[in-house]
Amino acid sequence: MGLKRPDRRGFLKSAAAVAGGLTLGSVEPALGQTPASGTFIKGSDELIAYGERSRFVTSVRIPHPPGGRASPDGFGLVFHVAAPLQDSVGMITPSSLHFVGTTRGSFIPDIDPREHRLMIHGMVDRPLTFTLEDLKRLPSVTRPHFIECAGNRSRPQHKTVQETHGMTSCAEWTGVLLSVLLKEAGVKGGASWIVAEGAEEVKGASSIPMAKAMDDCLVCYGMNGEAVRPQQGFPMRLLVPGFEGIFNSKYLRRIKVVDRYYMTYNDYGHLTQDPKNAALGVQIGPKSVITFPSGEQQLPGRGFYEISGLAWSGGGAIRRVEVSTDGGRRWMDAEIRGTAYRMAHTRFSFNWNWDGKETELLSRCTDELGSVQPSRAQVAEFFNVPLDPSYRVPGRDNSIQPWRVASDGSVHNGNS
Amino acid sequence: MGLKRPDRRGFLKSAAAVAGGLTLGSVEPALGQTPASGTFIKGSDELIAYGERSRFVTSVRIPHPPGGRASPDGFGLVFHVAAPLQDSVGMITPSSLHFVGTTRGSFIPDIDPREHRLMIHGMVDRPLTFTLEDLKRLPSVTRPHFIECAGNRSRPQHKTVQETHGMTSCAEWTGVLLSVLLKEAGVKGGASWIVAEGAEEVKGASSIPMAKAMDDCLVCYGMNGEAVRPQQGFPMRLLVPGFEGIFNSKYLRRIKVVDRYYMTYNDYGHLTQDPKNAALGVQIGPKSVITFPSGEQQLPGRGFYEISGLAWSGGGAIRRVEVSTDGGRRWMDAEIRGTAYRMAHTRFSFNWNWDGKETELLSRCTDELGSVQPSRAQVAEFFNVPLDPSYRVPGRDNSIQPWRVASDGSVHNGNS
Repeated sequence: MGLKRPDRRGFLKSAAAVAGGLTLGSVEPALGQTPASGTFIKGSDELIAYGERSRFVTSVRIPHPPGGRASPDGFGLVFHVAAPLQDSVGMITPSSLHFVGTTRGSFIPDIDPREHRLMIHGMVDRPLTFTLEDLKRLPSVTRPHFIECAGNRSRPQHKTVQETHGMTSCAEWTGVLLSVLLKEAGVKGGASWIVAEGAEEVKGASSIPMAKAMDDCLVCYGMNGEAVRPQQGFPMRLLVPGFEGIFNSKYLRRIKVVDRYYMTYNDYGHLTQDPKNAALGVQIGPKSVITFPSGEQQLPGRGFYEISGLAWSGGGAIRRVEVSTDGGRRWMDAEIRGTAYRMAHTRFSFNWNWDGKETELLSRCTDELGSVQPSRAQVAEFFNVPLDPSYRVPGRDNSIQPWRVASDGSVHNGNS
Repeated sequence: MGLKRPDRRGFLKSAAAVAGGLTLGSVEPALGQTPASGTFIKGSDELIAYGERSRFVTSVRIPHPPGGRASPDGFGLVFHVAAPLQDSVGMITPSSLHFVGTTRGSFIPDIDPREHRLMIHGMVDRPLTFTLEDLKRLPSVTRPHFIECAGNRSRPQHKTVQETHGMTSCAEWTGVLLSVLLKEAGVKGGASWIVAEGAEEVKGASSIPMAKAMDDCLVCYGMNGEAVRPQQGFPMRLLVPGFEGIFNSKYLRRIKVVDRYYMTYNDYGHLTQDPKNAALGVQIGPKSVITFPSGEQQLPGRGFYEISGLAWSGGGAIRRVEVSTDGGRRWMDAEIRGTAYRMAHTRFSFNWNWDGKETELLSRCTDELGSVQPSRAQVAEFFNVPLDPSYRVPGRDNSIQPWRVASDGSVHNGNS
């Protein structure tokens, strides 16, 4: 607080900063200057009811893998849709830009919430059926959590961070702890798994260890302050914090309490039937990525930049993020911006003065368990595959993402 | 963690809960049941790019005062637009539902961000002009903050919480600390105020004490993870945490550093030219309101309900929220849900078993300064006006909001 004399180490004071595009003005604008006639947005009752973004903001999601389109008959979306992380700020992904993962061949159910029911049955003292209104009467919690698709990874053909990492997003979720519902139903002795099923064509069923179900899973009806969106499971979805995206069943309609692992469509690779190992086997991260500057972005010149990015882990809260601006020789602590919540995107930033020379930018994070994000070499060694990044590892890939900065300021995927 | 036998005090176990509408099912749904043919949302490239909410979700903003419409010529909105707090969950107000306050007669500027400039001038060592891209290169912060219109108050003719309290909202804001920009410009000795001006017809200028400007004010370009919306000041707005809404200048284009209080259009009642008193004179709250159950909502019957609401204060973080379910005779601590951030909406909840009898629900909050939200009687005494709530107090009204619950479950404004 209080006044300070100009700081000689200020961000804008160096010639480099000015050369980099920061403008200095000295002419006062005319008092009372307003936008020219005609540069107003035409108001409407629709804009009163539910606002829109500026026509000058064009950040959009893209099909994943890139190049897809809506199906020709207009029903169903492409397989997956990736979030524009290159434009992200803060922790929250706007609901309209949240990534979408679909089970193969699924369409988006158009569910009337008055007709939707969630049933809890199987090895319980009494089966229960909940309407949306029933759920909303129960004690709720609101927590920020990321969801990430297990297939989210940087491939040599990917050019942008949306392509390399866009299958993760973070929202403020509101709902009821699954443990509250299970305790109401009364879980019988010997029950060790739940199977959560959504109203999708392929049901989106997943087996989840009872310990996780009784810990921090949520049945969510709220997302970023309003109803969960249809692409995210309206009217209700399961949140399984830190687990692979496919466990977070959308359009949740049924939870069966059982004493064994159920084989379902979703078990393309999840055959870990030991509940103790299963939880660790499907836990995401730790992972981080620099979102600015990232692939296909252009630095206007040398000078000061805030490097910004996201870190997250299925193992809990992010405790540390390090950044290297010299290809991994030196690592320096980045600043964590805002609160580092458990199983949530965490924004980090790092103040960087670019000297205009070619270099490589990297980030790596450490979570509350002490797990450190691995290098590509470590991941390759773990899965016993060649170091060449064109080789797709047969598991989740949370390796460090390199961004190459060329001397002309262009930025490229270091895994290419 | 672990399994529990049924809890005899469970939320759903009482006959009252069942009578209140919670359904119990025992028939298993057929395996593989999917929505009937035709109940899918038609996919499109537009839905891939930027998602939409369900057609069954109809929560909307309304003109404030109620009854207004977009101007007949289609330009400009009504004076103010109120957020549907009765449907709110969590801390964040979705950007599309964030309240809108406009200066009288203003339209929404349709600004091309490439042509927008922010100038800092006046009593500075060197005036600076920033483009949006310049700002984005500087160190950023992301913080949740509420903005509330000074006129937000419960009037006898108001039926819903949207009408009584809908002129407040909370978003995750991202931008640059104003102090960073002022330090770069170099504030001269003797400078004691800033005047912030937006590109609106009436300029939206406000005088702000230098101490506040150097403390926690933000120049924001991000809101809830994407660009600030046009109704919120795209491409950049000032955030003055905890101050009356009118200080948070939208379409920010000019900050003049001065040595005196400037009289502007916005100074309809802010003639506190002493910088020490001015800050306290324009600081919001502490204030809270129950959003469920609230006016015009209908309880289906006696039994368990989660009472839910919002609390906020210009004095900092909310430390305590109390709820009364008997018209103010007994007060019990509510639970604070999530993190209570400084100058941010804070969600609270309270578990309530309604016995089906007529009663009145109230909430009151205490902030980190120890300030307690006053009763209507205390506010009336302070302003020396009659206790009758039809009398509008000549200042901000942060009094306790009563909601009357009738024996038929209907809920009404206790100030009527």
